[in-house]
Amino acid sequence: MRKNLLKPIWQSGKTVVNGWLSIPSGFSAEVMAQQGYDSLTVDLQHGMQDFQTALQCFQAISTTSVVPLVRVPWLEPSIVMKCLDAGAYGVVCPLVNTREDAEKFVSYCRYPPAGERSFGPNRAMLYAGSDYADHADAEVLAIGMIETAEALENLDAILSTPGLDGVYVGPADLALAFGLKPSFEPSDPRMIEAFQNVAAAAQRHGKIPGIHTGSGAYAVKMAKMGYRFITVSNDARLLASAASAGVKALREGLA
Amino acid sequence: MRKNLLKPIWQSGKTVVNGWLSIPSGFSAEVMAQQGYDSLTVDLQHGMQDFQTALQCFQAISTTSVVPLVRVPWLEPSIVMKCLDAGAYGVVCPLVNTREDAEKFVSYCRYPPAGERSFGPNRAMLYAGSDYADHADAEVLAIGMIETAEALENLDAILSTPGLDGVYVGPADLALAFGLKPSFEPSDPRMIEAFQNVAAAAQRHGKIPGIHTGSGAYAVKMAKMGYRFITVSNDARLLASAASAGVKALREGLA
Amino acid sequence: MRKNLLKPIWQSGKTVVNGWLSIPSGFSAEVMAQQGYDSLTVDLQHGMQDFQTALQCFQAISTTSVVPLVRVPWLEPSIVMKCLDAGAYGVVCPLVNTREDAEKFVSYCRYPPAGERSFGPNRAMLYAGSDYADHADAEVLAIGMIETAEALENLDAILSTPGLDGVYVGPADLALAFGLKPSFEPSDPRMIEAFQNVAAAAQRHGKIPGIHTGSGAYAVKMAKMGYRFITVSNDARLLASAASAGVKALREGLA
Amino acid sequence: MRKNLLKPIWQSGKTVVNGWLSIPSGFSAEVMAQQGYDSLTVDLQHGMQDFQTALQCFQAISTTSVVPLVRVPWLEPSIVMKCLDAGAYGVVCPLVNTREDAEKFVSYCRYPPAGERSFGPNRAMLYAGSDYADHADAEVLAIGMIETAEALENLDAILSTPGLDGVYVGPADLALAFGLKPSFEPSDPRMIEAFQNVAAAAQRHGKIPGIHTGSGAYAVKMAKMGYRFITVSNDARLLASAASAGVKALREGLA
Amino acid sequence: MRKNLLKPIWQSGKTVVNGWLSIPSGFSAEVMAQQGYDSLTVDLQHGMQDFQTALQCFQAISTTSVVPLVRVPWLEPSIVMKCLDAGAYGVVCPLVNTREDAEKFVSYCRYPPAGERSFGPNRAMLYAGSDYADHADAEVLAIGMIETAEALENLDAILSTPGLDGVYVGPADLALAFGLKPSFEPSDPRMIEAFQNVAAAAQRHGKIPGIHTGSGAYAVKMAKMGYRFITVSNDARLLASAASAGVKALREGLA
Amino acid sequence: MRKNLLKPIWQSGKTVVNGWLSIPSGFSAEVMAQQGYDSLTVDLQHGMQDFQTALQCFQAISTTSVVPLVRVPWLEPSIVMKCLDAGAYGVVCPLVNTREDAEKFVSYCRYPPAGERSFGPNRAMLYAGSDYADHADAEVLAIGMIETAEALENLDAILSTPGLDGVYVGPADLALAFGLKPSFEPSDPRMIEAFQNVAAAAQRHGKIPGIHTGSGAYAVKMAKMGYRFITVSNDARLLASAASAGVKALREGLA
Repeated sequence: MRKNLLKPIWQSGKTVVNGWLSIPSGFSAEVMAQQGYDSLTVDLQHGMQDFQTALQCFQAISTTSVVPLVRVPWLEPSIVMKCLDAGAYGVVCPLVNTREDAEKFVSYCRYPPAGERSFGPNRAMLYAGSDYADHADAEVLAIGMIETAEALENLDAILSTPGLDGVYVGPADLALAFGLKPSFEPSDPRMIEAFQNVAAAAQRHGKIPGIHTGSGAYAVKMAKMGYRFITVSNDARLLASAASAGVKALREGLA
Repeated sequence: MRKNLLKPIWQSGKTVVNGWLSIPSGFSAEVMAQQGYDSLTVDLQHGMQDFQTALQCFQAISTTSVVPLVRVPWLEPSIVMKCLDAGAYGVVCPLVNTREDAEKFVSYCRYPPAGERSFGPNRAMLYAGSDYADHADAEVLAIGMIETAEALENLDAILSTPGLDGVYVGPADLALAFGLKPSFEPSDPRMIEAFQNVAAAAQRHGKIPGIHTGSGAYAVKMAKMGYRFITVSNDARLLASAASAGVKALREGLA
Repeated sequence: MRKNLLKPIWQSGKTVVNGWLSIPSGFSAEVMAQQGYDSLTVDLQHGMQDFQTALQCFQAISTTSVVPLVRVPWLEPSIVMKCLDAGAYGVVCPLVNTREDAEKFVSYCRYPPAGERSFGPNRAMLYAGSDYADHADAEVLAIGMIETAEALENLDAILSTPGLDGVYVGPADLALAFGLKPSFEPSDPRMIEAFQNVAAAAQRHGKIPGIHTGSGAYAVKMAKMGYRFITVSNDARLLASAASAGVKALREGLA
Repeated sequence: MRKNLLKPIWQSGKTVVNGWLSIPSGFSAEVMAQQGYDSLTVDLQHGMQDFQTALQCFQAISTTSVVPLVRVPWLEPSIVMKCLDAGAYGVVCPLVNTREDAEKFVSYCRYPPAGERSFGPNRAMLYAGSDYADHADAEVLAIGMIETAEALENLDAILSTPGLDGVYVGPADLALAFGLKPSFEPSDPRMIEAFQNVAAAAQRHGKIPGIHTGSGAYAVKMAKMGYRFITVSNDARLLASAASAGVKALREGLA
Repeated sequence: MRKNLLKPIWQSGKTVVNGWLSIPSGFSAEVMAQQGYDSLTVDLQHGMQDFQTALQCFQAISTTSVVPLVRVPWLEPSIVMKCLDAGAYGVVCPLVNTREDAEKFVSYCRYPPAGERSFGPNRAMLYAGSDYADHADAEVLAIGMIETAEALENLDAILSTPGLDGVYVGPADLALAFGLKPSFEPSDPRMIEAFQNVAAAAQRHGKIPGIHTGSGAYAVKMAKMGYRFITVSNDARLLASAASAGVKALREGLA
Repeated sequence: MRKNLLKPIWQSGKTVVNGWLSIPSGFSAEVMAQQGYDSLTVDLQHGMQDFQTALQCFQAISTTSVVPLVRVPWLEPSIVMKCLDAGAYGVVCPLVNTREDAEKFVSYCRYPPAGERSFGPNRAMLYAGSDYADHADAEVLAIGMIETAEALENLDAILSTPGLDGVYVGPADLALAFGLKPSFEPSDPRMIEAFQNVAAAAQRHGKIPGIHTGSGAYAVKMAKMGYRFITVSNDARLLASAASAGVKALREGLA
């Protein structure tokens, strides 16, 4: 089976640079796959994606050695398993708030006896090799999102779940949970404290801490805090920023 | 009929800032339509677009007041007319090399007796209004590309074609025509001279000179040379640059 | 944030005329958006729609000032939130049978602390404006369907749910609940009584009563009964009726 | 091979009632296929269709005994042959203005030695049967559009082309050719005279005269004039009319 | 209403030969529909399908008399009902492990009072006829998958569920449940015993036993064991085997 | 630039085994790409493909080292160039009947000064590398189809065209040209003689002779005749044969 290339990065103590795909197009996904990311996550929750466009994005990513991941829209077995069958090498799951959530989530990602994933890796076997079923549990990542007050309270219970590979902080929802405005570069002390707690707890449990950020500078700050799976922005926001900066500069030049 | 908002910009002596769509997605098109461009051109020639994705892009652009344009893949009547029926308010046509090319192209964009466009503006009437047929010839732009040595020789013949609204320099193909490497920011004197000749000739004939460029700085230079319809980069390149710069900065910060 | 234009209609005491989209095409959606409806509802439950076609329909509707709504397939958080992220300005949810259902539904439509909607309004911000998050809870409509005997029994409990904007009667399912044949123009006294009860209860609680009908005449009857959000037929049935009437008339003329 | 069911209708002296598909959706095509038409024509010229959506429409039509036809965007061999390979049982071709046009068009629709159609009926064999190649030339209809002054002058030359099955009047383009406003229910004497000439000439040559009309009443008038292949409106206009009439009636009832 | 043609096959004591569709294409579905299967099942669980591609496959299948079925991704009401509305004449549901699962599943497939299916058979009425609602409960098949140890224990409870038409053994998941390697041609005695138990129990309850197999020889063995609804392989595996065998033979011939 | 892996195969005197894609699905393309072919050709002429599905197939093929090729629908510059921009590493062009056809075709595949290909390799640069423009002319294959009597007469003129890499015999159209029934395994002496002539002429001119065949045995025969680029069947026919053989065997076993 094709190895999950994120694991050796973490084993060497380095940080995974992850990209985020909200544009439902295999072409833009392939553009993103050429820009140096270690992994790309197709966002089925807030991105304009569904299963069919995710499939196209997975294929586009698979033209490179970038690792294809998915964020599913909800803690539901059908979409988790469908995305794995389509070749995702890891699943980011929203709203893993309790130990029970974490156990359910892990069980959807693992074949029996470790879990209850149903067997039928139709595209996964094309991408990963014919021995996929033998090794999938060891290569596929299960990453639960920490984005509520409840999840913060249950950090140790969640992080000690067998089979969970990591956690991923959703700063926007967490901000709402604290009564703050959503931001991907928060400075509120409660947010910072929460970020520190998650990173520390993940390390304590030997799990990968991950986080979504809004800028490279903030991402570096998070890496220094211990985060090892870091996203900066997403494709649509990158496009919007680049285009709007270009238009603005041109209009100023023309003025 | 909805007015073509590019015309008053030119009438006031200003320059149109045009964006370029090669990603076949209505969502990325809508993202682009929010960034301040005056017009967006769906690229059916070199972009990963076909008629059906162009239709989605035209709809996405039409959620704003940005003017929807198209670059067709070739000087062929069927695709020119289909794109106009789908609501394009202007057509950029590759390889208008002779007066005959220019006349053919214009004829595809105009209803009889001015041209030979066939009648059936199915979506155009939704976008433009029920009186579309009465005013389309006056609002729809016909812009021919100048991108060969032959076209440069025929500049006056082309630019004096009745019904042609403007010309658009394709620097990459023009560079190849000169035996140079394709570039969207050329400095070779022959290129610069050609750019000046096109701008001057267009102004002489009361037509709009347009050009594709690779940077805002170069675009400003072109505006100073007289260009009034200027594109900087395209959506895929903007996304690639922004993503790759972001990854690079993050990796440097992490190192 | 772009205002929800249905609210002033109701504030002025008038009735919203809503259309219904079951054809999975952005073009037919744009055709419908030009016919004078106040709002159009993309039907993800019984229509031949899924998320990706809904996205195209939302974009098509957004070329006009018609308000884009969605009927989700089921009371499930992921699809409710995905549709809101894609720019729906209101959600009609099937089978809101109890107070608990209504509370869950509302919570999926509202950001914390009012609800548990997750943050990521990727297209919604393009459509509504960059301050979407600040005002979304006030503009987005949550409308629960009353279509079972259980729901009729729980009318007051449902209608007193904070954050619920209205209810929508599904006459076909309600007929089945009463052991009757499904109809969108029922005359059975139990149906009429139920319709009256819903309208009265909604008014009592200051909520908008809505209903699906099969003809303009029936719709007017419902408006007189107090309904303020009324659908007549859907795109596929309108097309079928118009085509079949045309064919029939032509065949009679030819005979 | 499956028989072309339009031929016996004509042999019995009756008139074919044809529908017109501009909405790029297999579902709306299937709705149309249930309304009593003898044939349905997928409009690749002015409809919002391309090859892939035409394929879906052909499949949808093939769920019934309605005969699938196509209007191609232009007199070009590739799209004529692709549509035949996809199962179209007849091609309506725009702008057949001369005998040479007619001969070219017919040659694209017929296998050697009758024409130059290339062999590869991938879906056609599924729809028609494995002996498709033996009988296709006898079942597939080639229908040229008469819509210019030049075509009217060349009527006999066009209609005497071997292998041409019929002609189809495009009233909108013909109106433009006469300097009139496009209409699908024209009353101008020159239009009426032209319609009569085409019908008479077609009958003289034993070919089927066809025409596009805007109402059932006008269609009946055309049938009386001798037309045997008649279209009324199209799917998008039927939908628009039905929806807008419904909204108008409802708003009047509400007022 | 169009009859479900599988029922008379079973009534005559014969075995239904079922095909399996994992390729998300209406064209490949139509190819499959021409190969002699009694029914074709669109696999929304492990196939690369979602609702929109299933709709296209249902339409493609409906060009023939082959019976369209679906395997849904999970025991969830929304997708079961959506597929029935789109014209599926039977639903195979994964993981029916208990009597409660079976009752829920049946209720999603049946209109009140037999179940809780919501009314809106938009495409089903096109395919089946306008009296669909009157007869759907009698024609639509509800087939629950037996693929866990728990399901085996609950066989009688499941099979005695009113309205359940049959069961379908998933050998791969069942193998995992037994701690074996997934296989569609298992020889392990526990598997064989389980297969025998399911067939016997289904016959005892007058229900149809079905099973997924990996070869014709194994399928025949299963038919001898009593199975009456049998699938061999799927489209993607058939294509892979045929292509790879062809390449191998050619390379050997070339060597 | 990524090398065209077919060239070293030919340089070592071996034969390229080519597959053929008519199913418009990236998933089935990826299935095919795993079966051992050296190259896969997306068939835009007779396959159910258009540009957008070809793009998905190119991406799917690019997940492997199989070389992506295309057969364009006709000798037209726009589609040849669009497919090259989308990453095709070679073009098979129908109906190259004369030296002029061959020269035109080659010119569409080569950048100036060798040809007149327009510059804009948007996806090609992602697939091939940023130096694509420097080496594309040397890596991209131009293969003209020999499938008419006229082409056979012009063999030497065609094969001596600079820049043409090979020819590809279309046996079905050639059979029609000879007044024979189309077949991919012809035994008629005139066909065999023509096949021999093409192979000999190609070798004489140092060009690659290619051919479409219907079985592995026939393909081996053709390889012995000198053919070095050989296709057996296509995806749809492979699927149909495998499925129909499976059904037949099962029905016999059941009988």
